[in-house]
Amino acid sequence: MANYHKLEAKTIQELRDIANKFRIHSVSSTQASNSGHPTSCSSIAEILSVLFFHTMRYKISEPRDASSDRFVLSKGHAAPILYAAWAEAGLFPVADLQNLRKLGSDLEGHPTPRLNFIDVGTGSLGQGLAIADGMAYVGKKLRQSQLQSFISYQSYLRRGVYCLIGDGESAEGSIWESIHFAGHYKLDNLCAIFDINRLGQSEPTSLQHNVDIYQKRLEAFGWNAIVVDGHSVEELVKAFHVAGTTKDKPTALIAKTFKGKNFPKIEDLENWHGKPLGDHAEKVIQHLRGLIKNQGPLQIHPQKPLKDDAPVVDISNIKLESPPAYKLGEKVATRAAYGTALAKIAENNPRVIALDGDMKNSTYSEKLKKVDPNRFIECFIAEQNLVGVAIGAACRDRTVAFVSTFATFFTRAFDQIRMGAISQTNVNFCGSHCGVSIGEDGPSQMGLEDLAMFRAIPGSTVFYPGDAVSCERAVELAANTKGICFIRTNRPATAVIYANDHVFQVGKAEIVKKSNKDQVLVIGAGVTLHEALTAANELAKAGINIRVLDPFTVKPIDKEAIIKNAKEVGGKIITVEDHYPQGGLGEAVLSAVAEERNIIVKKMAIPTVPRSGPPSVLLDHFGISSKHIVDAVHEILKL
Amino acid sequence: MANYHKLEAKTIQELRDIANKFRIHSVSSTQASNSGHPTSCSSIAEILSVLFFHTMRYKISEPRDASSDRFVLSKGHAAPILYAAWAEAGLFPVADLQNLRKLGSDLEGHPTPRLNFIDVGTGSLGQGLAIADGMAYVGKKLRQSQLQSFISYQSYLRRGVYCLIGDGESAEGSIWESIHFAGHYKLDNLCAIFDINRLGQSEPTSLQHNVDIYQKRLEAFGWNAIVVDGHSVEELVKAFHVAGTTKDKPTALIAKTFKGKNFPKIEDLENWHGKPLGDHAEKVIQHLRGLIKNQGPLQIHPQKPLKDDAPVVDISNIKLESPPAYKLGEKVATRAAYGTALAKIAENNPRVIALDGDMKNSTYSEKLKKVDPNRFIECFIAEQNLVGVAIGAACRDRTVAFVSTFATFFTRAFDQIRMGAISQTNVNFCGSHCGVSIGEDGPSQMGLEDLAMFRAIPGSTVFYPGDAVSCERAVELAANTKGICFIRTNRPATAVIYANDHVFQVGKAEIVKKSNKDQVLVIGAGVTLHEALTAANELAKAGINIRVLDPFTVKPIDKEAIIKNAKEVGGKIITVEDHYPQGGLGEAVLSAVAEERNIIVKKMAIPTVPRSGPPSVLLDHFGISSKHIVDAVHEILKL
Repeated sequence: MANYHKLEAKTIQELRDIANKFRIHSVSSTQASNSGHPTSCSSIAEILSVLFFHTMRYKISEPRDASSDRFVLSKGHAAPILYAAWAEAGLFPVADLQNLRKLGSDLEGHPTPRLNFIDVGTGSLGQGLAIADGMAYVGKKLRQSQLQSFISYQSYLRRGVYCLIGDGESAEGSIWESIHFAGHYKLDNLCAIFDINRLGQSEPTSLQHNVDIYQKRLEAFGWNAIVVDGHSVEELVKAFHVAGTTKDKPTALIAKTFKGKNFPKIEDLENWHGKPLGDHAEKVIQHLRGLIKNQGPLQIHPQKPLKDDAPVVDISNIKLESPPAYKLGEKVATRAAYGTALAKIAENNPRVIALDGDMKNSTYSEKLKKVDPNRFIECFIAEQNLVGVAIGAACRDRTVAFVSTFATFFTRAFDQIRMGAISQTNVNFCGSHCGVSIGEDGPSQMGLEDLAMFRAIPGSTVFYPGDAVSCERAVELAANTKGICFIRTNRPATAVIYANDHVFQVGKAEIVKKSNKDQVLVIGAGVTLHEALTAANELAKAGINIRVLDPFTVKPIDKEAIIKNAKEVGGKIITVEDHYPQGGLGEAVLSAVAEERNIIVKKMAIPTVPRSGPPSVLLDHFGISSKHIVDAVHEILKL
Repeated sequence: MANYHKLEAKTIQELRDIANKFRIHSVSSTQASNSGHPTSCSSIAEILSVLFFHTMRYKISEPRDASSDRFVLSKGHAAPILYAAWAEAGLFPVADLQNLRKLGSDLEGHPTPRLNFIDVGTGSLGQGLAIADGMAYVGKKLRQSQLQSFISYQSYLRRGVYCLIGDGESAEGSIWESIHFAGHYKLDNLCAIFDINRLGQSEPTSLQHNVDIYQKRLEAFGWNAIVVDGHSVEELVKAFHVAGTTKDKPTALIAKTFKGKNFPKIEDLENWHGKPLGDHAEKVIQHLRGLIKNQGPLQIHPQKPLKDDAPVVDISNIKLESPPAYKLGEKVATRAAYGTALAKIAENNPRVIALDGDMKNSTYSEKLKKVDPNRFIECFIAEQNLVGVAIGAACRDRTVAFVSTFATFFTRAFDQIRMGAISQTNVNFCGSHCGVSIGEDGPSQMGLEDLAMFRAIPGSTVFYPGDAVSCERAVELAANTKGICFIRTNRPATAVIYANDHVFQVGKAEIVKKSNKDQVLVIGAGVTLHEALTAANELAKAGINIRVLDPFTVKPIDKEAIIKNAKEVGGKIITVEDHYPQGGLGEAVLSAVAEERNIIVKKMAIPTVPRSGPPSVLLDHFGISSKHIVDAVHEILKL
């Protein structure tokens, strides 16, 4: 084992002592909060002691330093011991740990980036490894490409990404997607530690202590998999050394551990998940104190990064490299405009990246790949990992990530997207093939709940561009907008309706048809905006004028413009959307006018599970075509 | 190989001929629809020929017969060849295949149960194996338990469950959850066929033709894994025989195939995914015709089931075995009442089952396990598979399935739930731990988007019971309600407010506080219903009367009662929900009153990502406590 120096006995004892100090903090802080998961902390005490006080290189004073190693606690319920590690490392006073889970403290039940030493929120299980994959991919591949790739990456300092995963959460398929990704891309700067403590929440895990099965599985997925005694600091130090020197493979430490380790009468027993130790606490703490040899100040300290060599990046003020260049009336699918815009912002800023789930020729994200294949991450058909990798890649503002697939397939990653909001991520999502307008492929491929999903994400911005020009600007705005952005694009080509120099703003609607005799305000978006325009022409022949509004963003929705225009036409609104009736454009408009008397809203949407057929036939069959809008206008005029 | 008889040469040729006939149908039907996936069909032609004309036992006349083998096409985009197989088997005229993807035909782009020979909709990838797991689990374990379990199941006829999976979709984590489940429960009546055709949609799959890697992975997950030439009917017949005689392990056939097999100039080439053959079609069909030796009627026919031995089951009119038994004012968490009711309906009907993701002691689904452990399926922490197994278990009305976990963790399976609606499933979901009222665990564990998600499922029923009595009745109603049902339960205990004999109906709201001087209608549900009642008492002291409405079901929502009561109080509604502002109770109410003039709605909800803290403190901090309702009433009275 090259360059491996055996530890001195003193260091071994110190690392053991630190582990037991972490245990004491975990017990006492969960006692103070009267809730939490001390036994889940205890199984990983030595792992954290070795990582934080021996293996990892990081700046305590600057926890989000770009040149530091990364640590992701996938089993977020072990938060108290992670907080203890940072406190003992010196980031904040140990006494603060007693504020665990209190309203005024950021030391919450599960970690969130409200804390300056946390990159992502965890607590929904099975998500940490995808994040770590994203960090490791950017740290290795993107850096490699920027070093012109022919200079060997191996000769450069590797920053390590460490991810700690519980055995219970290893049953999550998302973990196996991430394991496959790391193996496929040979992410040798990634090290996963599996905490095999045998016990789940309500019963033992399915694999219990069968560490050999974990090893076989990980090896079959292309990993270097090492079984260790997770409570032996010597074995851990040695295994992390192997991880750090293994080339072309990620390394997994399969750590056999015991839940509640060193908690007498609790260790390895069922029915102790997620509970403070109560009456047992005092005796356990006494026992732990007895195990600690050095009662004085710590003798060892975390290691600093060897070099401050992470490139400085600037992701502000990203622009389309060239403005939209369409002809009015030209037929262009917004999905195609998305791809064009993505390529243009990638030309403008070297940190713009795209991620794909084997859909790049449908979503048109492949256009970025043509600009720079090194900034295109193919994640194959594994949407949960796809989203997680993007969130990891965007951490610490290292990249501006755009993820695209069919809109409906983001439902596969709703939990990751939800956690992304808790993680304060700025990842951008583009969902193509929305609604019945995709046609013959049928309901399984139609995005009809995506607006409901993305609107329910706190702090999200939801773009629904009506033509190619506005779609390009949506991409540009999304690149510069904080929080999660979603851009909904269409499969069929529709007419360009905006001038190339039209200026769009988040939360600002556009009036695309207007007269001073309008009797109804019709709000459509995407394909239905065009149906509304057709309906307006039809109705005009019968002497009925309608106003047509394009919201541009469904969230935030332009409340002011909607109310103002609705009042001008006599308080009658029709919304029409290629989406189910719940949670989409219609309900966004209803929320905007909720406190207004004398405004009524007629909501048109897809009422039921649709079916296969030609796009225009389906629009009509499911009640959102221009013909149906004309009928709805006649009806609302009677109310 | 016990009882294995080598095929006659005549049969071999016939099976080859059938495969090429399937190919011709796949090419010609996708030509007719001018869309579809003929090359994805071609790689599985021999697999389907052997399954449908040699291996499987099923009734053509009665495709949903309970004693028949099951087949799930996980790679749903190969629908045309599945339709061809059933047509050639004799279920419907071969000429109908030309109606593929047409609006009037149920032969849609991807399979749905609108067709009587389809159990579940597929097309969102990676979902079929979970369904097959559910079918196999019920076919083996539930049956076994009903045979008193000590009579060996092996001596009884096994019904086989076959699931065909694409190699592209094998990257989905959901597949690995399902592989683990089948291995763990030793489902030897399950056979998965992996179609390793090397090519994805936009590029080759990550593992291409490395069949040995698939084999290693499957073996590590406890499967009997056999590599076969997927175009050799002899090898397939032999391997299916092994699958049928292997005990205590599921079997996987890892079939090396070629996309576009037997399509000259197309076979094994990129850029042919999801396209009809166009100008190539005629020559390809000519070539395929040339490969067929028997041009006359088929010489072999599908095999019938050996016995009609599946038990007749009755899942109608399920009742609580005993009525709710609470005292008014008693404090009971609705999650606890859910568990009680689940146990009661399980006592009433032997086909009621419960499925869990290692949360049974939090959701209280463990109460069913105490009634009958054989009807409790522990799926561990793998929510996608959990939901898929439930859908599979409920197919052909074999069980009434209840799935429970934390409400927010259903976001992990949104795609499966969405596809469940397309699959016309009747699975019932219970999400506990909703909202900020869970307290200290923090935002990652709080269900705050679950109403938006379940409301956006077509045909769903969303229960949000306000106390233990109504929760028990919600469970009873859900068991008898078609379509997807969701029951939202709370962590904290709240007062019982309904009499034990109170009658509840889907879509019928309850007025829980009323006077003839009411000035505002407040609509709350779950914990916020109790906050509303507290607010009503507070306001009464100041001489202000409010009416309080409990919707009972958020979908369908009682539009009539809301409008009637709102009008009676002067058109002022306040909604208050422990949920994000989008897609939940507030927007459901807004949709109900959308076309009413003179009704205004003030929506109270959780405005941002919440944080850890004590439940009652959080209700107040995030603006949905009784105090905030009092304030909102004062405000709306000014409007």
